[in-house]
Amino acid sequence: MNVTVGGKTRHFRTVTFDSKRNEVVLIEQRLLPHTFKIVSTKNFLETAAAIRDMVVRGAGAIGATAAYGLAQGARVFTGSNVKTFSRHVESVYQTLKAARPTAVDLVNAMNDVCCAMTRGKTVEEKQAIALAAAEEFAAEDVRHCETIGRHGAKLIRNGMRVLTHCNAGWLAFVDYGTATAPLYAAQSQGRKFHVFCDETRPRSQGATLTAWELAQQKIPHQIIADNAAGHLMQRGEIDLVIVGSDRTLGRTGEVTNKIGTYTKAVLAKRHDIPFYVAIPLSTIDWNLKSGFDIPIEERHEHEVLGAWGTLSSPKSKVQSLKSKKHAYVRVANPSSGARNPGFDVTPAELVTGIITPAGIFKPRELWAQRKQLGYED
Amino acid sequence: MNVTVGGKTRHFRTVTFDSKRNEVVLIEQRLLPHTFKIVSTKNFLETAAAIRDMVVRGAGAIGATAAYGLAQGARVFTGSNVKTFSRHVESVYQTLKAARPTAVDLVNAMNDVCCAMTRGKTVEEKQAIALAAAEEFAAEDVRHCETIGRHGAKLIRNGMRVLTHCNAGWLAFVDYGTATAPLYAAQSQGRKFHVFCDETRPRSQGATLTAWELAQQKIPHQIIADNAAGHLMQRGEIDLVIVGSDRTLGRTGEVTNKIGTYTKAVLAKRHDIPFYVAIPLSTIDWNLKSGFDIPIEERHEHEVLGAWGTLSSPKSKVQSLKSKKHAYVRVANPSSGARNPGFDVTPAELVTGIITPAGIFKPRELWAQRKQLGYED
Repeated sequence: MNVTVGGKTRHFRTVTFDSKRNEVVLIEQRLLPHTFKIVSTKNFLETAAAIRDMVVRGAGAIGATAAYGLAQGARVFTGSNVKTFSRHVESVYQTLKAARPTAVDLVNAMNDVCCAMTRGKTVEEKQAIALAAAEEFAAEDVRHCETIGRHGAKLIRNGMRVLTHCNAGWLAFVDYGTATAPLYAAQSQGRKFHVFCDETRPRSQGATLTAWELAQQKIPHQIIADNAAGHLMQRGEIDLVIVGSDRTLGRTGEVTNKIGTYTKAVLAKRHDIPFYVAIPLSTIDWNLKSGFDIPIEERHEHEVLGAWGTLSSPKSKVQSLKSKKHAYVRVANPSSGARNPGFDVTPAELVTGIITPAGIFKPRELWAQRKQLGYED
Repeated sequence: MNVTVGGKTRHFRTVTFDSKRNEVVLIEQRLLPHTFKIVSTKNFLETAAAIRDMVVRGAGAIGATAAYGLAQGARVFTGSNVKTFSRHVESVYQTLKAARPTAVDLVNAMNDVCCAMTRGKTVEEKQAIALAAAEEFAAEDVRHCETIGRHGAKLIRNGMRVLTHCNAGWLAFVDYGTATAPLYAAQSQGRKFHVFCDETRPRSQGATLTAWELAQQKIPHQIIADNAAGHLMQRGEIDLVIVGSDRTLGRTGEVTNKIGTYTKAVLAKRHDIPFYVAIPLSTIDWNLKSGFDIPIEERHEHEVLGAWGTLSSPKSKVQSLKSKKHAYVRVANPSSGARNPGFDVTPAELVTGIITPAGIFKPRELWAQRKQLGYED
């Protein structure tokens, strides 16, 4: 999507590949929203470190980075022995996999590349195929998000006020994002609307990443405390909710997403506000039979007990500050602890529709439509 | 309630009066939860400044401070001319009133003192009555909160997990508080239970003040992000909700309280969890006919866009830090703005009961019971 740097607006993807220099080119996401910076990894070890240290985060973006990282590693191999090459690629694969052991997209993306490489006969052919497959993985991620946008944009009418939670934006994918894609598509079709970004405590991805994305795209928006959405719905100030999902159960239509999503779905139901979930097909879990079987990660309590930001005076415009010193403040009572569940599960009855690259489905229709949604028995 | 300072546990009230020194003695609430400090105001001008600058906050605590401030001002008058004395008292009254122009409790408390003073004939008599009336105002605040605690404690059974939102604790009154009073009473009756404190963004009064209160009283508790309560209710980990209220409508049973209260009430209803509101009688509004007529204060956006706390490393124990430097960090994207409604309105159908000093009532019974609740036609 567009980013304005030093007065100039340019199109960026979260992840691209510089084939001449054999470098993966990334947006340094840890500095956002306060600083926009592009970084390059010189070799697959640096790429693995960038994944591990969360320079890049989000399902699609991590997948593409790993795919490029595998190609990057494969391409430095010199020699023509295919067996030695395979052992080398295997070691690159394992290094990248270890960077985020629980990220499914990372493994899926690299498997795509490995699978494609089997078509090559020589080392040189395999190297060329690896890069082409990585490029294709990234391109497909973009196409899927674009298609989600095209389907979802139909839901957004002029003058609407749309609520979103957390960040399922283009920063989490290669471009467009999932929950944000319908917004970007509707904007490109000339529609005017307003977005409320839930702050999304404790990590505040709505206030930081989603708000930054919308500001860059010049989409009118306001950040609200997670506590405020119920009041705004009650007063008739929210017309539509769109969120992303980390895992949607194909058998039940239950939606796992950032903590607080369930609360918004309950509120939307009470106020008859449509509640949509935008997802790539890769996040549909066709195995689990109940949302209660989804393990909910309990994260470190310091996320709840404090906040990260830029040291500032409350009323100053942060843009004009010379210092951008990033700091953590302990907000809570020093001797108190916290509970910090990272995700929650929203039952199908609260979800109006699931926006996928294959179209919009009722959550309970997913299983019946599983062939169309890419499920292989 | 009890506060442990330097290893010693002592009982404190938020506001007391040192009649020898003619000083109002206050807990410096702006330093909490990071530092506990007692301050004294040497004259009524300092008392007015303490109210204005929020050294003291909360309905009952401000009322008692103003009552003591009026007595403090009256007592420095020298001379015996009753008319001159009355003019002096009037000027003290106006100075204190101007400190928080919208605080109803402040005016009500001072009117009590003024009304009592009419019973005195000489300046000396009136001065003595002023102090006695201020002491009586504070004592009545304590008695009311204690009675709320006695009624509410019956709701708390052994092993319960209780959710509370914001701070309607003893820091907001002279002692015991309203939403916290049932907790303190149940504890003193030997019951064991666990409290979840909603962080209560954007000002985080749950994470700071309520958590500090509970820690001082050694009541087991954990802070949660406002996003987490829905998930905990869904998983059966919350048994009871108790909150306070700034204004409850006597005619409809609608409850105005800190933003986010309505959301918790909607969630509690969905999960059949009892939702109680603890209030002093002075906060019942017998005039308004609809919750939609309650003006909802829109507060400054910097509250939503950042957070205040103590500079720290995320994983260090803050207690052990030598520096307690208080700072504001801008969390949100620098070029984004915010909406910041300060309160919301919960309809009567979501409220299980209203805990008052006169007993526990169904919200829609208030009007029928108005005589018992102190309403004068």
